[in-house]
Amino acid sequence: MQLSPSLSQLIEALRCLPGIGPKSAQRIAFHLLERDRDGGTQLGKALTKAMSQIGHCETCRTFSEVSVCDICLSVKRQDSRTLCVVESPTDVLAIEQTGQYQGLYFVLMGHLSPLDGIGPREIGLDLLERRLSEGNLDEVILATNPTVEGETTAHFIAELCHKYHVSPTRIAHGMPVGGELDLVDGQTLMHAFSGRRSI
Amino acid sequence: MQLSPSLSQLIEALRCLPGIGPKSAQRIAFHLLERDRDGGTQLGKALTKAMSQIGHCETCRTFSEVSVCDICLSVKRQDSRTLCVVESPTDVLAIEQTGQYQGLYFVLMGHLSPLDGIGPREIGLDLLERRLSEGNLDEVILATNPTVEGETTAHFIAELCHKYHVSPTRIAHGMPVGGELDLVDGQTLMHAFSGRRSI
Repeated sequence: MQLSPSLSQLIEALRCLPGIGPKSAQRIAFHLLERDRDGGTQLGKALTKAMSQIGHCETCRTFSEVSVCDICLSVKRQDSRTLCVVESPTDVLAIEQTGQYQGLYFVLMGHLSPLDGIGPREIGLDLLERRLSEGNLDEVILATNPTVEGETTAHFIAELCHKYHVSPTRIAHGMPVGGELDLVDGQTLMHAFSGRRSI
Repeated sequence: MQLSPSLSQLIEALRCLPGIGPKSAQRIAFHLLERDRDGGTQLGKALTKAMSQIGHCETCRTFSEVSVCDICLSVKRQDSRTLCVVESPTDVLAIEQTGQYQGLYFVLMGHLSPLDGIGPREIGLDLLERRLSEGNLDEVILATNPTVEGETTAHFIAELCHKYHVSPTRIAHGMPVGGELDLVDGQTLMHAFSGRRSI
């Protein structure tokens, strides 16, 4: 028995979602058709719209429907001399949710990973270099993830900053607030000790 | 910070997928935007098409883009006097994959569940009754799931069959082929014993 062509196409297309194999794709397709056609139609429209309309901000590279994003355009932030470098737009979201940072952002959309063919150009370091060269920045906060690739990327950007006499800083590593000492991994604990401050 | 409107809409729309919460929806949206725009666009189109074009077969109620599905139209099957009643189109698929059954199907699209407001009409038993009354059937194979609801539904349909002098049969319950006796649950084992056959 052949499934109807639209249904096979839908099941095949659902497999582009991360972590969805053939069985899950089939389950999702039947779920939408049997129980949530409105939701499915909405999702179809939202996907088509988002995929065609969302581009990158010309200044900070985050996702944006307009050429320059809200944060880069914000009057309060435009004169800020601090730039926070993160790996992904979700990191911007996480930092913004704390409400403590009032500076600008630069989104790499990844990290250096030469083996995967991701070099400085792919993560927009040419654009970042231009911003550094303009002389409007005092500090670059390197908020890439504390992974091997994230650290490498941070060091690479730090070198770039030194070249343009902008001071690079790295976010602190240590105990997460509310964490328990005996449940934290050795690396983090080591960072927490070496980064101790007098009180 | 506000996410761009198309992006928020996409994240919200993704939550109609079964088992996808706000965090996963965000992760999927960013994955598609960063790494698989073509896939996302395809999926959008496939969803829109499937949700608007896929209806139900007038004869057996399975999903179909045309008014009567391939199986019901099949010349080889049209004269079959055996009807297999299943809960969902995926069950038809599973049975067809065995390649052993050459009869017709009737898809309930669910099972009787009075507490959820699913009565005989909702699972198309009026349509099934009409087919029984036409006198073209000798046997109805009840292949609903071996759950409480599935059994109830099977018994309800069996009564209906008796009324129209069509003989109802229930698929066998017992040990799954390749299973191990000590790993099988008691209910199944009991069924396997009571349903024993002489060899």
